[in-house]
Order: sequence, then C-alpha cells, then structure tokens
Amino acid sequence: MDEAAASARRSDPGVPRNYPKGERRRAQIIEAAFTAFGTVGYRNASMVRLAAACGVSRAGLLHHFPTKESLLAAVLEQRERQDDERFFQAGEAARDGLEYFASMIRLVAHNQANPGIVSLFAVLSSEASAPDHPAHPYFVARYQRARRAMRSAVDDLARRQLLRPHVDPAGLPVDLIALIDGLQIQWLLDPHAIDMPERLRARLRDIISVELP
Amino acid sequence: MDEAAASARRSDPGVPRNYPKGERRRAQIIEAAFTAFGTVGYRNASMVRLAAACGVSRAGLLHHFPTKESLLAAVLEQRERQDDERFFQAGEAARDGLEYFASMIRLVAHNQANPGIVSLFAVLSSEASAPDHPAHPYFVARYQRARRAMRSAVDDLARRQLLRPHVDPAGLPVDLIALIDGLQIQWLLDPHAIDMPERLRARLRDIISVELP
Repeated sequence: MDEAAASARRSDPGVPRNYPKGERRRAQIIEAAFTAFGTVGYRNASMVRLAAACGVSRAGLLHHFPTKESLLAAVLEQRERQDDERFFQAGEAARDGLEYFASMIRLVAHNQANPGIVSLFAVLSSEASAPDHPAHPYFVARYQRARRAMRSAVDDLARRQLLRPHVDPAGLPVDLIALIDGLQIQWLLDPHAIDMPERLRARLRDIISVELP
Repeated sequence: MDEAAASARRSDPGVPRNYPKGERRRAQIIEAAFTAFGTVGYRNASMVRLAAACGVSRAGLLHHFPTKESLLAAVLEQRERQDDERFFQAGEAARDGLEYFASMIRLVAHNQANPGIVSLFAVLSSEASAPDHPAHPYFVARYQRARRAMRSAVDDLARRQLLRPHVDPAGLPVDLIALIDGLQIQWLLDPHAIDMPERLRARLRDIISVELP
C-alpha cells in the first residue's frame, strides 16, 4: 500500500489545519482509503495497511470506521458531495439543459486532472457489479440517479428545440453516461491517446444545436 | 470462491471429452479462473482457492500455470481468440466496414448473453489501469488494436460515402469503443435497464446511412 502511504503524506497539507484532531484524522483516513480503493480495489485493500499508511493503530482506525464497508461509504459519500457542490449547485443545473451539459464537461475536465478520482470510480463501479459487493446498491442507485438527471436536462433541451433533428432523445442518457464511463477506461490505460472533455464536447456538438455556455 | 467452483462444475460438459486428461484439466482451470477474475478480480483471486475449485492440488495447478500471471495471460488469450474466430473471421470483417460493424453488434449481443465475459473485461480492464498490474500492457495494446481496427472500418465507410454528413469520422473509434465499454458498466449493475446491442445498433443508425447486414 505504498500509494496510500504516499497519498496520505501528500494530502496532509490539503486537510484543513483548524479541524479538531479527530476530524483531521478522519479526513486523512478517507483520503488514504480513496487512493487505496482506486488502485488495488476495495476487496483487495487491507484495513491493517490503511492504518499503517495513516500512522494510526488498527484500533484507532476502527474507532473512526468500525468496518471497511463504513469507510467505503464515507469515501463515496464525500466524492459525490464534492462533485455536486462544485459542479451542480443545488440541482440548479438540472433545470437548465445547457448549464447541465456545460457543467458535465467541466466535471470531466476536473476528473481528467485528478486521475485518482477516475480510477476510484472505474475500479469500484466494475467491482461493485457483483451483487454481494457492499457498494452494489450505491452504484445501482447512483446510475439510476444519473440517468434521471440527464433525462431532465435532455427534456429541457428538447422543449427548447435545441436538439439537432437526427437525435433520438430517448437513448441519450444511457449513451452519454456510457460514453463518459468508457472514455475513462481508455484514458486510464493510455492518457495521451484520449482527451476526455474534448471528446464529450465534440459529441455534444453533434447533439445540441447551439454552443454550450 | 463458490462461483468458481460452481462454474467449474457447470462448465465441465463444455470441455471436449476427447481431450487428453492434461488438456481437459488445463481448460477446466482456465474456465474457473475466468469466473474468479471476473467476479472478485485478478488481484483478489487466490490460486489456492482456484485449485480447490478445480479439485486439483496447488502443485497440480502450478504444473499447468506456474504463476497467477501466466493463468491470467491464458484466460485473456483464449477469450480474444474465441471472439476473433467467432466474429471477425481472419480479419476479413475489418476490410468491409459494414460487415465489421454488423459483427460488432453480434459480438455485443453474444456478450449480453454471457455476463461472465462482460464482467471479466469490465473488472480486469479497470483493475489493469494500474501500471504495475500484470495485464496492463495487454489492455493498453488491446485498446490500441481495437481503435486501429475500427479506424479501418470507418475509413472504408467514409470512402464508400456511407457515413451521414454530420459525422466526424476522426473521433468515432474512441467514441464507439467507449460507448460499448460504458454500456457494459450500466448493464452489469442494472441488466433490465439496458439493452446493449440495441443501444449500439441505434447509435450506428445515426452514423451509417444504410442498414447493416
């Protein structure tokens, strides 16, 4: 778990200094788990190694997160909250289709600058396709939510007649989410071969008849 | 490793009976490893449990596959050979763009009927994005090959003026491979929400101006 140790050290300055000690420790553990899950996967990550990477005892780790499942939930919840806050302010974007897709491109560009995020979701979402995986319900619900949000945005564009005539709106949410996920796989394997936000923008130009804000 | 054991038992009838015993055993081990890698992942799969699932000793397993890496290579090589034989006869399809994309839809339909294949590639391709993963070079090369083959097919369609006017051929290989990979993630999590070959066919109808054979 060298990556986790390195990340925990690297990310120390990122954890607010004025947090109470317990909060800082908690944030540090989440950060190390984020890196570990995104590289070796959830199943293969070891709580003992995570504790060592954060410089806490196993008991100290279990004080904050009694199970590996609870740590996984905390990692996923934090990522989703950060994305929502940064890119989809209070669901406003979903009411304006153009704003929604512009935000989506910004989110993909942000992810491309942060390989750890991309790796976490690529590794976990496929690992979690096994029904007995603790994150299975989370990912099923996450994709249902994502398709619903994108459907609202597409409906808004259709109402405003901003979809090009050849476009079938019904399939767009599934197809565009698939495009974004699939680009991540090729990009993780071969970062120089793919520009994810550029590919998404090109695809959206073929769908939406006006330039995105 | 209940899945592996179950699969090894289930797949026994699929292993040709007139193989020499060693060959049958080898095929059985590859089949069990295929299931294990596609559910718990490569890193998390255990050679000891694989041996137990196949009813061989650890030494017996190591006789056929001295390392877990060599077993992974055998699984990937067998899958790719089977796909090529079944869907892309001797590279012929790549010379005819329409035939190539018709074969691609058939391959996706075949995968949708065989969740184990989809799971194997979804789990391994994301796990293998870590540069130190033994299948990393395989997957990097696999995607480069896939983009090159699709580029030939797209070029053939462009030459024959079978691409719709709004289509940008340059981005198609990356985008279509991403679509296929991304559909797999949504489908594995929520099989009833997605019809993969149907989505691919719809997307190709928006790209190619004639019906596929």
